[in-house]
Amino acid sequence: MCVVHNETSTGVTSDIAGVRRAIDAAGHPALLMVDTISSLGSIDFRHDAWGVDVTVGGSQKGLMLPPGLSFNAVGPRALEASRSARLPRAYWGWDEILAANEKGFWPSTPATNLLYGLSEALDMLLEEGLDNVFARHRRHAEATRCAVRAWGLELLCSNPAEYSDSLTAVVMPTDASGKHHDADAFRRVVLEHFNMSLGTGLSKLAGWVFRIGHLGDFNDLMLAGTLAGVEMGLELAGVPHRRGGVQAALEHLTQTARRPLARAA
Amino acid sequence: MCVVHNETSTGVTSDIAGVRRAIDAAGHPALLMVDTISSLGSIDFRHDAWGVDVTVGGSQKGLMLPPGLSFNAVGPRALEASRSARLPRAYWGWDEILAANEKGFWPSTPATNLLYGLSEALDMLLEEGLDNVFARHRRHAEATRCAVRAWGLELLCSNPAEYSDSLTAVVMPTDASGKHHDADAFRRVVLEHFNMSLGTGLSKLAGWVFRIGHLGDFNDLMLAGTLAGVEMGLELAGVPHRRGGVQAALEHLTQTARRPLARAA
Amino acid sequence: MCVVHNETSTGVTSDIAGVRRAIDAAGHPALLMVDTISSLGSIDFRHDAWGVDVTVGGSQKGLMLPPGLSFNAVGPRALEASRSARLPRAYWGWDEILAANEKGFWPSTPATNLLYGLSEALDMLLEEGLDNVFARHRRHAEATRCAVRAWGLELLCSNPAEYSDSLTAVVMPTDASGKHHDADAFRRVVLEHFNMSLGTGLSKLAGWVFRIGHLGDFNDLMLAGTLAGVEMGLELAGVPHRRGGVQAALEHLTQTARRPLARAA
Amino acid sequence: MCVVHNETSTGVTSDIAGVRRAIDAAGHPALLMVDTISSLGSIDFRHDAWGVDVTVGGSQKGLMLPPGLSFNAVGPRALEASRSARLPRAYWGWDEILAANEKGFWPSTPATNLLYGLSEALDMLLEEGLDNVFARHRRHAEATRCAVRAWGLELLCSNPAEYSDSLTAVVMPTDASGKHHDADAFRRVVLEHFNMSLGTGLSKLAGWVFRIGHLGDFNDLMLAGTLAGVEMGLELAGVPHRRGGVQAALEHLTQTARRPLARAA
Repeated sequence: MCVVHNETSTGVTSDIAGVRRAIDAAGHPALLMVDTISSLGSIDFRHDAWGVDVTVGGSQKGLMLPPGLSFNAVGPRALEASRSARLPRAYWGWDEILAANEKGFWPSTPATNLLYGLSEALDMLLEEGLDNVFARHRRHAEATRCAVRAWGLELLCSNPAEYSDSLTAVVMPTDASGKHHDADAFRRVVLEHFNMSLGTGLSKLAGWVFRIGHLGDFNDLMLAGTLAGVEMGLELAGVPHRRGGVQAALEHLTQTARRPLARAA
Repeated sequence: MCVVHNETSTGVTSDIAGVRRAIDAAGHPALLMVDTISSLGSIDFRHDAWGVDVTVGGSQKGLMLPPGLSFNAVGPRALEASRSARLPRAYWGWDEILAANEKGFWPSTPATNLLYGLSEALDMLLEEGLDNVFARHRRHAEATRCAVRAWGLELLCSNPAEYSDSLTAVVMPTDASGKHHDADAFRRVVLEHFNMSLGTGLSKLAGWVFRIGHLGDFNDLMLAGTLAGVEMGLELAGVPHRRGGVQAALEHLTQTARRPLARAA
Repeated sequence: MCVVHNETSTGVTSDIAGVRRAIDAAGHPALLMVDTISSLGSIDFRHDAWGVDVTVGGSQKGLMLPPGLSFNAVGPRALEASRSARLPRAYWGWDEILAANEKGFWPSTPATNLLYGLSEALDMLLEEGLDNVFARHRRHAEATRCAVRAWGLELLCSNPAEYSDSLTAVVMPTDASGKHHDADAFRRVVLEHFNMSLGTGLSKLAGWVFRIGHLGDFNDLMLAGTLAGVEMGLELAGVPHRRGGVQAALEHLTQTARRPLARAA
Repeated sequence: MCVVHNETSTGVTSDIAGVRRAIDAAGHPALLMVDTISSLGSIDFRHDAWGVDVTVGGSQKGLMLPPGLSFNAVGPRALEASRSARLPRAYWGWDEILAANEKGFWPSTPATNLLYGLSEALDMLLEEGLDNVFARHRRHAEATRCAVRAWGLELLCSNPAEYSDSLTAVVMPTDASGKHHDADAFRRVVLEHFNMSLGTGLSKLAGWVFRIGHLGDFNDLMLAGTLAGVEMGLELAGVPHRRGGVQAALEHLTQTARRPLARAA
């Protein structure tokens, strides 16, 4: 069973531990594989405690690196299954990688420079403290939702328990005929005026949803700039909305501010 | 006569052409030397047309480079004067520099890597177009003043004809006893919470003025983030103000928005 | 049929056009797939003219980039075959990639920053001119072989028509008992003394072969430094050899020197 | 009294402690000022122990940084003298700098990014150990002189006690008429063929001396490449010399090799 921990296209975070419990309750032998591409390093995730068999992560979101690295955390049941699996594989096979890893190597040429970046990124996350990192993302996500509500727009994610801390998908308002204003026309206005690229709606969300990312190397003022770009873009693109989204976000940020930890010299 | 074109400590831009006219009207032989450190590449300046004898500029503001380079533009009257000047000088002497420059050299070891950066910075300014660069700074300065007025705070510069386009100095409000709230305590709150360093009040402005820079490699969303940091900092530091400064700035930016020129690939 | 154009482990370059002719002469329908990882951008290769169906390249050798990008050039027969192929595939499937490429996209997150580097690397290769690039590699390879011969060591590649222009594999000399001196002990001495990492012998060449790379962003003086590290390492590791390898290489380089093209400003 | 510790134009290192002793023996009150631009961080220098009053250093040689920083070490007698000095000064005045330094500031805008580089450079020097750094420069200088002697060329510095460890000035041989071969024509050949810029002869050395730098971030193989460029350039420029300079340098390097300290991870 494959589950996305934080769905990039919808801004919905799934209850992985609950999925595991459901599998176990059903007495089903399925392995649990989780995609953490847009949550790893931004939203709390527990490979072992939650009974995940395979976790997939990437370098380009919460780990604050360019794209180019991906990771698998593999538990004992998944390893066992891979030994008898019959799907032809070479590059993706774990056995050769694990054998090389034991000697500190990799079977093919690795993206060496990204590994140096990863070492630095991990130092930065640990210096801030994972709890602080997760709280920072949660606070920015809530401030973003304050803005969306103040604009009178709708969040795509309707269940508060599943709100994503790393990105927010927003539904474009409808006109009199019930048709959504064009999300991509709006995104184009924002890109052209403010050099900011908002996420597009993917597959069946295409054209009526846009996405605001707030993860990784990100702070309060970057969020304020981001939301300002959205609010001005809504106005310039003629999308019906109420003003005051940025203001609402600033109020949330101010009320929840605490002095950040000093950075080491 | 030495004049600062744009005074970094007060946010006041002087009328250089007017100063020249006054010198000429008085029939005085004084040379006119102008400091353009915080205006060059941000605010229109005309060395030749305004009759300036010596212009001094630097790399670290409108030219968008690290500190480390400074420039002199020297007119014929200044050169003539330097030939008979008797102040002892070596490093600062123009003659040796000009002689070396003619062969493409410099008398001492120049900061070579900054010269590569300068070449790129000039390409960027010319690609955007100097008129667009100046208009961008003017628009950001006016948006900043909209925010200051909305906060109910006072601009240090009282003459609108002399408002600076590259930075804005703001007067801290006074309490019941007529004492200014502490500008440096406020600046510390902003630095600690938002990792943003506002300019301090200098010499006789120390303690009751802070400065907002809006120059160089700077765009609408960076300004929005900057003003958000000020507005939240005022709240967190307990400085009396009205909310809505960021909102006012966004309205000005929206009303004056025009599609930016496409950047060359 | 899979062929390596330039075999990294042995320093042997294969005659791809000849392989194609042999397939055709046999009237066999096999597709021809060529690995150009260590030749692309260093040794002349002709995907179309030589009738190759699939060419595989990478960023980290002749293209002078960090590892992290790989390329497929795919001809019409290979595309046709892929449409009816039944091996399960997802990431490696060409159809989805080609469909996205037409709109300027990629189905998954690409290693964006390496694409910027690739654009610059291609500009550099075209500025030098591919013929000059290939001639440069050929000249450095021949100078390297001059050094190896002068040391009295043996080239692993015994057929001059198949000498590699991008790397040279060298056989360690044998002692009285016919046993090869330890290539990895020698490589360790070079690494520790000169901070230079020579290639190790791979699989059945392990322990008795070492490899000298001379490709990519490489010039005469870098080759001289490289060969100096080998010659001093042979001495320090107690490997029997004659002196004068560097000297022989310098003589070849001097005799074949021509003024390099001026680099554009 | 101003003395250059290591003269960049001649490759001569002066005996600073001896100069101090001579001043003292003469009972003369002169202050001793030393230029260490091309020795600091490469050749042992003792500001306090040698009784120097003012030491001047720069970032761009032994400190392995781009040009742009210069340093003064100022002793108590020099400070005392500066208090009563009457030469007009502003930028160069120590008093304002020292007052600002005490609070961790600088009176004008410092070249901030070079200060980050300096911090890293000092870490690198201390990690290697100053004694090892000085020994490395001494060994490379001696290897360079081995090459010069093998070529049958003459060192400009005739007193072995004063050989520079950071650069070597070489005299061009004379032709039958006693005229020196053209050093700058030779340097041009080296630049065009090998992209290596040798130092030119300065003032009265112009045209008949060239200089080989071997300081800063420099190792054995970089020296080998450097000397190879000189040897091939001599041949290509038709300058009479004997072959074998590189070979002689390699022999010196091999005989004096010791395993370098492991670099920290």
